[in-house]
Amino acid sequence: MTETPVFTQNELREGFVEFAFGEPGPALLPVGLVRDAAGRALSSPGAAGALAYGSNPGPEELRTHIAARTAEREGLALAAGDVLVSGGNSQALGQVLTDLTRPGDVVFVECPTYNLALGIIADHPVDVVGVRIDEQGLVVDALEEAVREAKAWGHRPRLLYTIPTFHNPAGVSLAPGRRAQLLELARREDLVIVEDDVYRELVYEGEAPPALRALDPEAPVVRLGSFAKSLAPGLRLGWIDAPPELRDQLSADGVLESGGCVSQFSAQVVAALLDAGAFGAHVAALRVAYAARRDALAGALREHLPAGCRFALPAGGFFIWVTLPEELTASALLPVAERHRVGFAPGERFCADGDDRSLRLAFSLYGADDLAEGGRRLGAAIAEALEDL
Amino acid sequence: MTETPVFTQNELREGFVEFAFGEPGPALLPVGLVRDAAGRALSSPGAAGALAYGSNPGPEELRTHIAARTAEREGLALAAGDVLVSGGNSQALGQVLTDLTRPGDVVFVECPTYNLALGIIADHPVDVVGVRIDEQGLVVDALEEAVREAKAWGHRPRLLYTIPTFHNPAGVSLAPGRRAQLLELARREDLVIVEDDVYRELVYEGEAPPALRALDPEAPVVRLGSFAKSLAPGLRLGWIDAPPELRDQLSADGVLESGGCVSQFSAQVVAALLDAGAFGAHVAALRVAYAARRDALAGALREHLPAGCRFALPAGGFFIWVTLPEELTASALLPVAERHRVGFAPGERFCADGDDRSLRLAFSLYGADDLAEGGRRLGAAIAEALEDL
Repeated sequence: MTETPVFTQNELREGFVEFAFGEPGPALLPVGLVRDAAGRALSSPGAAGALAYGSNPGPEELRTHIAARTAEREGLALAAGDVLVSGGNSQALGQVLTDLTRPGDVVFVECPTYNLALGIIADHPVDVVGVRIDEQGLVVDALEEAVREAKAWGHRPRLLYTIPTFHNPAGVSLAPGRRAQLLELARREDLVIVEDDVYRELVYEGEAPPALRALDPEAPVVRLGSFAKSLAPGLRLGWIDAPPELRDQLSADGVLESGGCVSQFSAQVVAALLDAGAFGAHVAALRVAYAARRDALAGALREHLPAGCRFALPAGGFFIWVTLPEELTASALLPVAERHRVGFAPGERFCADGDDRSLRLAFSLYGADDLAEGGRRLGAAIAEALEDL
Repeated sequence: MTETPVFTQNELREGFVEFAFGEPGPALLPVGLVRDAAGRALSSPGAAGALAYGSNPGPEELRTHIAARTAEREGLALAAGDVLVSGGNSQALGQVLTDLTRPGDVVFVECPTYNLALGIIADHPVDVVGVRIDEQGLVVDALEEAVREAKAWGHRPRLLYTIPTFHNPAGVSLAPGRRAQLLELARREDLVIVEDDVYRELVYEGEAPPALRALDPEAPVVRLGSFAKSLAPGLRLGWIDAPPELRDQLSADGVLESGGCVSQFSAQVVAALLDAGAFGAHVAALRVAYAARRDALAGALREHLPAGCRFALPAGGFFIWVTLPEELTASALLPVAERHRVGFAPGERFCADGDDRSLRLAFSLYGADDLAEGGRRLGAAIAEALEDL
């Protein structure tokens, strides 16, 4: 391996290429930028502010930066007061569930969806209903039908958790017509859309599609933004951006009322980092680096995957979603792949009742050489598994 | 004011002495220690680890320090594996409620209790029952009766949220005999005790009483420990220490499974701070400083409070709990006090159905001169309010 990951959340196996882990490559983490920013944040006249209780919505300096970048890049006119600092999208999703749902409410998720979001939702006393996606993202007609059914059973359709831009795991983005259709449905049914927008900054072709939140600023959309991919996951820092009524409800959360901003120290450090003006260049460099990783993996897959395998090149994010030939399932492939020392996340992890014909490959963690080697190993494993059928 | 607080969570009024805010004084925040530790954490060979996803329970280095200090100071044999890093006691309490309760469960709280814990609990679909305390802490006989009643109504008595050591707001500590009685009740009823132990390090007379968690390591006690008072609230860093079954249930929380350690960056910085060995001296200095503040306020109260007012000197923590003469309520006093430019937290905030004869005074935020002046103003305000009756 050319780059040794130091990560502690996932155990990497010696000699393996681990496509299962959607984590930034360690060499891409901005250690120097954060070190300098921490030094400045703790040397300024307001240094004690980084260590004191913060306000519920978090430091105004940081919220001003977030609002300005959103206005500049998305044309959505935000003020600092419209933004609520979060502890990253996992914390934010948990908080949204705590603050906005009642027992028995229905929460819709995409099928497939980010598997660990399912665990966060499962900690809350709500019913989960999966809605299928296709190459244009969420099938909004199917959601509409599911909303109708939930109401017919006497349940309140309350939230949709969706990743409309550079989807995890499927790599797709929601088509423009469906974005409009979804917003219309959410307004009509008072269904809160939780828009997980964590990959927005990591776009490799043109511009990222407009956020649902930006397309209709008065629709019930809670957008979860994050510095986990654009800076570093360990900062546990993101933000929530929602229309006033929802934002105020979230800002009055009991944990915030008691502890203040959930990531006060990180928030002050990142405010200092953004003050220094280096964020834009850092993100631009990440785009180049991750695009090269995506292309390295895609090139290896094109070369080595047996006929009958399919994938689309994602325009952003961390993942390539490969669909196997009809006769092979991802769970049958996994042990074969592991003999070839390559890991991946089988599709069934991402959907309670999904098919098992797909696998998620993260290209974020490794450099080009390891990705090429992993693609070669995966191709060989699929070929062997197909022969053994 | 001799020391200008920089805090953002609470708005300080110009020219006021604000006894309502239980926050560390800004001059007591270890800005230099944290700055040096952040520099080291982000310069070491493992620097990227501070910025990467952490493991669910948090960095082992930090957990090892916490376990060692607990073993040394409390005689409770803990290993790193017994400790789960939290984002401070507010986050931890929210997580405990999410992970361990079901809709309709009964959560017992002390009356009075930490008022903002009531807001955290109110975000969850549980029933809250208050149990009175006296000068020996929680009245365990009353809890036993409340447990019996909850069961008679068909509800599950699930959690007790308690602050047995240097209580907020009342300043008392649970008496030894009641600690034993409470542990026996919790074991018998399978009632989980959530022991908020945030003030343990801030002891001003002798040793802090033994934690419930340490007295009976196999009882269902979830202890919430924190660096919010011993280092800095803005770090949003604490820990959970519980018997294996409860600890494992909490460690499998969906937000942790997805985002890893909730305060990874702060946790690595504080691990570096503890490595440097300066924590003991810092806490020792805090004890001296806060004891002097307590004594300054107590002295002023003794001098200036009219006859009929009562308070006990707390042996630790941040608060003096003053009880007014029978004819005066704290809410009637508040506007008079504010005319005298002194603020406090009236007792009714701390208990849904509590009496309103008491007030909470925090001595943590100001130096001795301001505390003396605030005590003088409060005495004058009470005298005036009594005259006006």
